[in-house]
Amino acid sequence: MHIGIIGLGKMGANMRDRLRAGGIDVTGYDRNPGLTDVASTAALVEALPSPRLVWVMVPAGSITTAVITELSALLEDGDLVIDGGNSRFTDDFTHAALLAKTGVNYIDAGVSGGVWGLHNGFGLMVGGSADQVARAMPVFDALRPEGPREEGFVHAGEVGAGHYAKMVHNGIEYALMQSYAEGYELLEKRDDLIKDVPGIFKAWQRGTVVRSWLLELLVKALDEDPDLGAIEGFVEDSGEGRWTIEEAINNAVPVPTISAAIFARFVSRQEDSPAMKAVAALRNQFGGHAVKKAD
Amino acid sequence: MHIGIIGLGKMGANMRDRLRAGGIDVTGYDRNPGLTDVASTAALVEALPSPRLVWVMVPAGSITTAVITELSALLEDGDLVIDGGNSRFTDDFTHAALLAKTGVNYIDAGVSGGVWGLHNGFGLMVGGSADQVARAMPVFDALRPEGPREEGFVHAGEVGAGHYAKMVHNGIEYALMQSYAEGYELLEKRDDLIKDVPGIFKAWQRGTVVRSWLLELLVKALDEDPDLGAIEGFVEDSGEGRWTIEEAINNAVPVPTISAAIFARFVSRQEDSPAMKAVAALRNQFGGHAVKKAD
Amino acid sequence: MHIGIIGLGKMGANMRDRLRAGGIDVTGYDRNPGLTDVASTAALVEALPSPRLVWVMVPAGSITTAVITELSALLEDGDLVIDGGNSRFTDDFTHAALLAKTGVNYIDAGVSGGVWGLHNGFGLMVGGSADQVARAMPVFDALRPEGPREEGFVHAGEVGAGHYAKMVHNGIEYALMQSYAEGYELLEKRDDLIKDVPGIFKAWQRGTVVRSWLLELLVKALDEDPDLGAIEGFVEDSGEGRWTIEEAINNAVPVPTISAAIFARFVSRQEDSPAMKAVAALRNQFGGHAVKKAD
Amino acid sequence: MHIGIIGLGKMGANMRDRLRAGGIDVTGYDRNPGLTDVASTAALVEALPSPRLVWVMVPAGSITTAVITELSALLEDGDLVIDGGNSRFTDDFTHAALLAKTGVNYIDAGVSGGVWGLHNGFGLMVGGSADQVARAMPVFDALRPEGPREEGFVHAGEVGAGHYAKMVHNGIEYALMQSYAEGYELLEKRDDLIKDVPGIFKAWQRGTVVRSWLLELLVKALDEDPDLGAIEGFVEDSGEGRWTIEEAINNAVPVPTISAAIFARFVSRQEDSPAMKAVAALRNQFGGHAVKKAD
Repeated sequence: MHIGIIGLGKMGANMRDRLRAGGIDVTGYDRNPGLTDVASTAALVEALPSPRLVWVMVPAGSITTAVITELSALLEDGDLVIDGGNSRFTDDFTHAALLAKTGVNYIDAGVSGGVWGLHNGFGLMVGGSADQVARAMPVFDALRPEGPREEGFVHAGEVGAGHYAKMVHNGIEYALMQSYAEGYELLEKRDDLIKDVPGIFKAWQRGTVVRSWLLELLVKALDEDPDLGAIEGFVEDSGEGRWTIEEAINNAVPVPTISAAIFARFVSRQEDSPAMKAVAALRNQFGGHAVKKAD
Repeated sequence: MHIGIIGLGKMGANMRDRLRAGGIDVTGYDRNPGLTDVASTAALVEALPSPRLVWVMVPAGSITTAVITELSALLEDGDLVIDGGNSRFTDDFTHAALLAKTGVNYIDAGVSGGVWGLHNGFGLMVGGSADQVARAMPVFDALRPEGPREEGFVHAGEVGAGHYAKMVHNGIEYALMQSYAEGYELLEKRDDLIKDVPGIFKAWQRGTVVRSWLLELLVKALDEDPDLGAIEGFVEDSGEGRWTIEEAINNAVPVPTISAAIFARFVSRQEDSPAMKAVAALRNQFGGHAVKKAD
Repeated sequence: MHIGIIGLGKMGANMRDRLRAGGIDVTGYDRNPGLTDVASTAALVEALPSPRLVWVMVPAGSITTAVITELSALLEDGDLVIDGGNSRFTDDFTHAALLAKTGVNYIDAGVSGGVWGLHNGFGLMVGGSADQVARAMPVFDALRPEGPREEGFVHAGEVGAGHYAKMVHNGIEYALMQSYAEGYELLEKRDDLIKDVPGIFKAWQRGTVVRSWLLELLVKALDEDPDLGAIEGFVEDSGEGRWTIEEAINNAVPVPTISAAIFARFVSRQEDSPAMKAVAALRNQFGGHAVKKAD
Repeated sequence: MHIGIIGLGKMGANMRDRLRAGGIDVTGYDRNPGLTDVASTAALVEALPSPRLVWVMVPAGSITTAVITELSALLEDGDLVIDGGNSRFTDDFTHAALLAKTGVNYIDAGVSGGVWGLHNGFGLMVGGSADQVARAMPVFDALRPEGPREEGFVHAGEVGAGHYAKMVHNGIEYALMQSYAEGYELLEKRDDLIKDVPGIFKAWQRGTVVRSWLLELLVKALDEDPDLGAIEGFVEDSGEGRWTIEEAINNAVPVPTISAAIFARFVSRQEDSPAMKAVAALRNQFGGHAVKKAD
């Protein structure tokens, strides 16, 4: 099998390596001349056997749309595009419709695993028609972790289902991280009583209810920096967490932990909180409580 | 009527003034020689006609307990102690039992109104037996706001009910303040679109669903400092908010807004968040996401 | 002054009445023949003196867009459309642009006050250009509550600012309601201690920090049904609360109380919670904890 | 080594079995005649070699206190009591002080693993002096999971630290469960798009960021009942989750996800929500919005 990949950033390059290690021929294109195998998208399309399979691995949003638009003009009836990026599932409907005009097929693939995916394999959630998913299965099998296929891969539904599942995955991920983080602070705060915070997380790795891969990563982080003294509590968030809240709202699903996790990240990035200024101002008004003056 | 007040801080002094303006004779004791009318608690007790009524207005917790313990030794069968401080309602049971040993009666009075109470009157929530509440009614009538008694005073139940109601009042107060504060931030953040944030709050004072006394105070604060530039978003919290959460937990009552309001205050006082350091460390581990280095 | 209103539902009819009482001539159109003054939108436009002012008061979303689209074909250069409905502020940009093509001006007006507005006046938050707002001021003055203009009316910014402010108003409103509701449950749950829950709310109306119009309404509701036994805890939500969360997410504003209020409404409408089924299933798996069997 | 266990319920009996399998002699006492090895606590003490080691595994609170009080009268200087139950860490200080009067040593051991501990081993977090912990190490080694000791066991600090760590473990556990549960509902709600909810959870077991033991249990639960149709979303909570909130409040640690998880359980057990009745009543008052009548 011989496929194309567009986008050879950290994730795309790792996937190319893993695919090749799994016996798939890969031609990659990236607009960075230092990374690409071919000179253009057109050259990539040219280089692939028909019917073609092109894996798109570029930033979600306008860049993905631009790449898919370009592909829609270059590819032919019967070809297949797989969007493996972190696209919003609602974009999948647009992208699939655009490609369908010229008979090009579409699969959306949510991919989890981060920088560890190269060695561990990538968890895959895909959406699309059964026949297209079957056709791309060698690619999925090469990318996914060792072990039973169904423990690292799912055909979640028609187009959009893969990215929807990935979006929910990331929403859960946010809340899981916040859960451990609250526990960390509860332990760290009582340094009069608790003498080995990293040791506690380490000890939770076997036998306990809270054991997980994220826990293992936290153990690793605490091994490297036992009181996390080298870093600030400043945390970015990406689209998927936000979309999760938006879908929750659209579908009337209560998501108090996922939203709490996002809001904590928002607060973590604020120099000062306008909301808490307002609360301080209010307390000062009704109770004569002293406020802390800004410098 | 002639009563005693113990504790002549900001609240106690205001209450003495309002009581005197309402025709009640008041003898006050404070351990600060510059504030007191008499030299000691014993002298205060001596100065009052029997059966005595002593209003205790000192900080909640051990100081209130110490004062009530001292009173239990000085007062006589048939006297009445009213704890008007911010005591935890569970303390009322202990205090009432202690005084009951020598036949001294007890009322707990939750008092709202802050520094505005002197002029507006104090909102009162009291707990105790019907006959004792009736006996102290002239005092309550002098302290409470003008208007129908039931709009500024309630006999909420037996001993403890007054402070329980006040605790809930303060829990609600926390959540109300946070509600307006979130709205403030939503408006302030869109300064590309919203050109008059103080004007919006001002305009909400009549006709809208969100009009309230707290809103009026926020309008006042924004009049004085339209972008709240002079103060920091650093907010203390007092016992009552915390007790509200604890009672909610004890009684299996979900209180998501009240707890959110308290947690926001906790965060507002942190230089950096241990929890968010943990989240940043986790993101760095699985995704290679850059962290912000501490200085 | 003589203006048109499109939409004579509960809110529109009340506004017509209040405008007429304020000396403004009003011609109303409603597609319900029993409510309308004229036979069609075209007839309404025909009936108004030029330059015309048409107040649109129909359901937000596609219906408002349809009405404004129709008006864009009927109105002339220099006319003015005011959207007084609960439109999303992002729709204002589209509607203003559509009308601008033929020189028709646009103001968005957020209106608060509900069924009480007829008698109390409506709180108004408007967005648009200064000259158009000035031109419509007699209408705003007739609609808004008695008292200083700035306490019931604000020109919040350019087009969109009025509905944005109204959206935030409603977000706050949700959180305020939830705040009181949590307090209600905390009081109601301790019926061993608290003997007069309605009396407590009534007593908070004067002197306390939590006094507000919503509190007065809760007092009224408890007067009519002291234990709220006649109604279910089933609560709808409207677009504005949801949009508030969405804007908070878009602008990285933490809104824990507003989101908690929305989520509580979502839960209130569920027969059973899929999420809590999952938690019950998990507890059963790891702890052998009994689950409650579905019927 | 020969130790005693008091309490042979599900957990105690499993621990006895695992200890015996690990080469530790165990004499067990339970007040249920069908479970016990000996007739009384006194007989248990009699049967053990001196210095004795007694593992207490009875319900937290008054029962644990009663057992430890009884032991304090029966044991001798140099003996050791380990409380392996789910006691509140604040009880440890009292229990240790009580036993110390007669020279009896004390260790608190938080134990995780539930019904799976017999086969997988129990995660252990212990508090106490270094020498007592060293002395009991053969017991801990027999109970803990296979693998490096520090991945299933931690000496967290002095007395109380073990149960504090276990309390935090359980707080995290609550939030983790709620996180997955919200994700479950987000998937389940979109059955128009998502065709294989159980398959998605199954596929998350390898390679993804959210893989964990709890995820595996959820996969197992969904294998048995793919739409969780057999159970109700009714979830109990135990002391440790509540204590976590209380300690968070005591130490000013924001715990929005842990509290959200607890509140969701509270709501799950309510027939109807008093708070949401209040919100419904309020909406009816200001907007004339229809309420759902109770039957």
